[in-house]
Order: sequence, then C-alpha cells, then structure tokens
Amino acid sequence: MFNQQLAKKAAKNLKTLREKRPLIHNITNYVVMNYTANALLACGASPVMAHAEEEVEEMVSFAGALVLNIGTLTPYWIDSMLKAGRRANELNIPVILDPVGSGATKLRTEAARRLINSLAINVVRGNASEVLSLAHEGSRTIGVDAIHSVDEAADAAILLAKELDTTLAITGEVDLITDGVRVCNVYNGHKLMGYVTGTGCVATALIGAFLSVDRDSVEAATTALAYFGLAGEKGAAGAEAPGSFQIALLDALFSMDETALQEGARIHL
Amino acid sequence: MFNQQLAKKAAKNLKTLREKRPLIHNITNYVVMNYTANALLACGASPVMAHAEEEVEEMVSFAGALVLNIGTLTPYWIDSMLKAGRRANELNIPVILDPVGSGATKLRTEAARRLINSLAINVVRGNASEVLSLAHEGSRTIGVDAIHSVDEAADAAILLAKELDTTLAITGEVDLITDGVRVCNVYNGHKLMGYVTGTGCVATALIGAFLSVDRDSVEAATTALAYFGLAGEKGAAGAEAPGSFQIALLDALFSMDETALQEGARIHL
Amino acid sequence: MFNQQLAKKAAKNLKTLREKRPLIHNITNYVVMNYTANALLACGASPVMAHAEEEVEEMVSFAGALVLNIGTLTPYWIDSMLKAGRRANELNIPVILDPVGSGATKLRTEAARRLINSLAINVVRGNASEVLSLAHEGSRTIGVDAIHSVDEAADAAILLAKELDTTLAITGEVDLITDGVRVCNVYNGHKLMGYVTGTGCVATALIGAFLSVDRDSVEAATTALAYFGLAGEKGAAGAEAPGSFQIALLDALFSMDETALQEGARIHL
Repeated sequence: MFNQQLAKKAAKNLKTLREKRPLIHNITNYVVMNYTANALLACGASPVMAHAEEEVEEMVSFAGALVLNIGTLTPYWIDSMLKAGRRANELNIPVILDPVGSGATKLRTEAARRLINSLAINVVRGNASEVLSLAHEGSRTIGVDAIHSVDEAADAAILLAKELDTTLAITGEVDLITDGVRVCNVYNGHKLMGYVTGTGCVATALIGAFLSVDRDSVEAATTALAYFGLAGEKGAAGAEAPGSFQIALLDALFSMDETALQEGARIHL
Repeated sequence: MFNQQLAKKAAKNLKTLREKRPLIHNITNYVVMNYTANALLACGASPVMAHAEEEVEEMVSFAGALVLNIGTLTPYWIDSMLKAGRRANELNIPVILDPVGSGATKLRTEAARRLINSLAINVVRGNASEVLSLAHEGSRTIGVDAIHSVDEAADAAILLAKELDTTLAITGEVDLITDGVRVCNVYNGHKLMGYVTGTGCVATALIGAFLSVDRDSVEAATTALAYFGLAGEKGAAGAEAPGSFQIALLDALFSMDETALQEGARIHL
Repeated sequence: MFNQQLAKKAAKNLKTLREKRPLIHNITNYVVMNYTANALLACGASPVMAHAEEEVEEMVSFAGALVLNIGTLTPYWIDSMLKAGRRANELNIPVILDPVGSGATKLRTEAARRLINSLAINVVRGNASEVLSLAHEGSRTIGVDAIHSVDEAADAAILLAKELDTTLAITGEVDLITDGVRVCNVYNGHKLMGYVTGTGCVATALIGAFLSVDRDSVEAATTALAYFGLAGEKGAAGAEAPGSFQIALLDALFSMDETALQEGARIHL
C-alpha cells in the first residue's frame, strides 16, 4: 500500500504552487534551459534564468527557490552559483543542487563538492553515481561501483545524507529520498523519460518549485518526484516515442489536476 | 470595427517576408535561442545567432534587422550588442530591443538604458514594467506601479516614446504600439502564450523580421504582433496545454496564409 | 538502382549503435544543444555537452566520438575544441567538424581552418558554401560562387577532400560524401528539414554517432545521412508544418527499425 498522507501532501503542494506562482531562479546548463523553463511554467511556477555575477544576488532575493545545476559548467558559473547561494542562505530561500556529471570529471566533482561544502543545500538531486560521488575522502559511504543492490544504495544514501547534512534525492527506476532519518521511495515514472534530455534537470527544478511552498525537504522532494513521475506516465499514455513524449510530458504537468495526483502518487515511506 | 488598412499591411508584410527571406541577426538569450530560430524560420525569415565581439559587425552587415535581447545577460554580451548596434545604425539596418527583466535588477535596467541611449533603436518590445523601466531620472512618465488603468499605461507609453524617440511595443492582453504620435492596439493573442517560455522574445524577433521589410516602425510592430497573436489563436484551436501549443504555434506561423492574416488581424488605430 | 551494400551497412550501423549506446561528446552551439542531445538519445547514443577547458580532455576520453560545431563561436570555445580534439586524436577517437557559417565571417572561416589544420578530422559536414570555404589560399578547388552544377560541386569536393586529407559530407537536396577517391550520394531527405533549426547540426552529430561504430568515414557519413534523411521522410508523412515535423523527426529517429532503414536508404556509390 502506498502512503496516503504524502499523496495528499503532493496534491496540496501542487495546489499551493499554482496559487502562489513563485519565482524560481535557475543557474543551470545551456542544454536544458528552455525545457526547464517550460516545465516550470507548466507546473505553475515562474522561471527565471540569470547567471551574471553582477545580478544573481539581486535576482535570487525575489525567488522562492534557487536551482543550481552544473551541467555545462565553467569556473565563472561556479562563482555565480556561490554568490547566489550565499545570498539565498542569508535570506532563508531554499537551495537545490543538481550535480550533473559529478564523478565523471574532476571539474564537476570538485565544483559539486565545493557548492555543497560552502552552502546550506536543502536537497541534492541526481542519479546514484552523481550523488554518491559527493562523499568526501574518508566517508563511511561505499562508492557507487561497490553497490550491487537497491538496499546497499539506500544504506549508502542514508549515511551520506547524514554526513552532508542535507536531503538526497536519487532518481532512477525507483526514486529514493532521504535526509538520513526518513527514507521515501517514489514508484512513479516511465522509461521514455530516459530518452528526453533534461528530464533529470527538470526533476530538480520541480523539487525547487515544491520547496518554495513546502520547507520539509523530504516531503517537498518526494511529492515533486511523484508529480513528475506521474506526469511521465500520463504523457506516455499518448506518446510512443521521445519527440511526442517530450511534449506530452509538458502537457501532463500542466493538465494534471490535484485529485489525479493524489490518486496516482505511488510513494512508500 | 478593426482597421482594414493595417490588416492589409500585415498580409503584405508577411508576403514580402516570405519572398525575400531576410537574414535576421539575433543577439539573444540562451533560453529562447532555439525557439526563436524556429519561429523565424517558420515565418519565412533566415535566423542567425552570433554574439562574438570579433564577428558581430561583419554578421550584422548581411542582415535585414538586428534583434537585441538581454534575457541572460553578462557584460560581455552588452559590449557585443553595442558593437553590432552601432554598425547596424551606420548601415541603416533596423534595430529592435527586448529589455527582458529591465526594472528587476540593476544590471538589466542599466544595460537596457545604455543600449537605448547609445543606439538608434527602431522598436522596443517588452511588457509594461520592462518598457516603463526605461524612463530616465526626471522623466515625466509615471512609474509602472502608479498605473491603474489601460488609459494611464497608454499615456505613460506615449510620453516615453517621445522622450526616448523610438517606437514602444508593450505586449499584454491587448498590445499597445506607439511612437508618441500614433497609437495602435492589437487584440489578437491567446492566454496559453503566457505558458510557453520565450513567446515575448519571439514577438520581438518577429517584429525584427517585419521591420526588415517595412521601415514604418509602428506599422511593422503592429502587423507583426497581429500575425503572432493570430498564430497563437490558431495554435490554441488544436492544443489545450502548453507543450502541444508551443508546437502548434510554430505550425500556425508557417501555415497561415496571407488572406487568413488579413481577415483575422484585429488592430485598432 | 540504389546501392544495397551500403543500405545494409546503414542498418548494421544503427543496430550496433543501439546496442553499444556510445557516449558522444559535443562542443556545439547554444541554439541546437537541446535538439542535438534529443536526436542523439533518439538514435540510441548517449550525448554529453561539455566545453570547459578544464574538463574537455577528460570528458572526451570516455567518448566514442567528438563533435565540434562552431555555430555560436567565441575564441574561448575554439581553444576548448582544440584541446578536446588533440586528446581525441591521441586516443584515436573520431572527430567530426561542422563549420557552421564558415565563409560568412572571418572569425568562423579562420576557426574552421584552424581546427582542420590542427586536428585530424575524420569528417567535415556542412553545406556547399561552408565546406568549400575551407579551401586554403592557392587551392585548386574553385570557389562556391563559381559552381553552376552538381557535377562542378562534386569535382570541387573531390579535389578539396584530397587536399584536406579528410572526408567531406556536403548536405543539400542530394547529399555528397567523398574522401577524394570514393563518392557517395544520398537521396533521402525532405524539404521540411530546412525549416527546423539545427537539422544540419543534428546530421553532423549523427555522423559522429555512426563514426563511433564504423571507422570507415565515407560509409559512416553516408549511412548516417541516409538514416537521418529517411527519418525526415517518415516524419514528414505525419506532419505538414515545421513545429510538428520537428517532433515527428525525433520520433522517427527513435522508431525506425533497421529493416526499414535498409529498405528505405537511397544511396548511390
């Protein structure tokens, strides 16, 4: 049986989001800027993309959440992310990090770690290898290569969330969300999501939007991922290939009513 | 009754555009580059995006119009915009400015004002708060916060157009276009346009395309906005959510015949 | 009659690609990053976009091919392309170049020539004027302006391929692929492809993907272009305007089975 409390919370968060239309400030990668902005608009939020050092502190001060994504990184962008993140922290605006490609190159791994060490980050969203690459030297967390089962991944994530003092959202066939104490799983989603570039980045941005109306990081991340996964299922009902699916997914984010979300959310706590 | 002269002009401009296929040089923001290029192709123009200081002067010299958009600004980009704009002015190539987010951050407000003070800009296209933020200190124009009616907005825009010596195109539920003397309104459009990122930027780029075939700034801006708004209406006829609408809008730009535009344009002068 | 050997090779390459899912490293332009990534995913490859000088050498070492595209160039990007290209050459990873706009501005022409002079490039893909602009001073190749027939273009391309010691893929109504010895023509394609921004860039990226599984440059380029052109034909069967065509093209890349490709490829050798 799925958790009814969190399904109800998902519907409530979506409703609040659509009423409040919060500004979500994204410092994200070139590949997904357009799709992310459209997904945020479709869910009811107001996206803004701004990365200039000269304006990020001012821009983030208007925002309900700050989304940091290192997908097409250069050092300039890290500096802007740090500036925006520090200001967000001062103003108690939630910050979410997508460590795209962390673990693959030194630049990305170091940038992700620097962001997480310098800022209070509410949620980190990535795939298992990206998230587990954030473990510092001497972490008790085992590396992603040593993980052979879902249970081992969950154990590693719980430990790492405690060490980093944040909420981790590891997305995959089943999503895992943990703050080191609570552990949630989201069973919504569809395999076509893996054939559209930027669905991971959109998941991150939607968590940002949900955080702007729900300051419980575990519940915000869990309900956002249930909403996004369910939109994927609904989108796939009318689309068999990634081009039309990409469009149907945006439509589903926009069209999904809150009751449908409450009924369709498949969350384990 | 709507203005028949301008409806006819809209059809004529679209026809000329499709015959001439002018190159439109865009220095625009990362979020909308792809959608803008596709919209320009769909209307019959040839888009090029180029922002390097080393080439903008050469590139703009081949263009029918130059579109400047400050949506994801850094200082480097302003310098390139100034270079391209000065060359366009020398060559008598029309320049259109989209002051995205002007009024929101100091960087954007100052960039927009610097561009408008340094260059001869044929048309500025933005929403009311962006456009009215361009008023210099001591302007007689009232601020956007003090505006409580459509009439007050029109009065402010007329005054500002005179002060800035340009044509202003303020888009919203009803679009307002004025050079300080003539005032046009465009009633075409659809509310789904607000759920697709970059529709404002596309409106700007289409005005650029129309300017390349019609050097009367008020008429070019007005007819371009009627065309774009009508495409929105036609797109929305077959699409109920923003994903499919975004695609249907491109289709409508491409498929609309000139007679349909003449019959569907709802312009007041 | 069309060449059956190469039609069969096209099917084989597509099958291998879908099995191996090679990482394709793109240093490409802002306009097409999203569409290119989606096209690579649709064909079965794994795209990554990374351009920072600090990481391109590391990133390319994981890749099956490196795609260089100068569409929204600044000098910084050329340096990154050179770094990534040199490392790719050391590791014997194929490199493909898209000289977008070469011949139009000095920056682009010089960048394209510098890349081709500094790196071993397996395939250059562009339109006739872009490709022929790569001829060095004193080349025996006649300029694009002096070309009045398909035969003259073929003669110029054969000469230039020998001079540059690479394979040239000139796309147009009929595609021409030559290494200076063999000459292939691809008759697949659809005119709506010219109304979607980035289809040329996608063709280049798909050639990169095919090169990662087929080191015969002429055959990789030819079969990739047949696959892409046929996807265009299939996409156009269900779409009459560029918005829906853009989506249908992605769908067709994903849905096309290998038998359909073998039967539909129209290649002359």
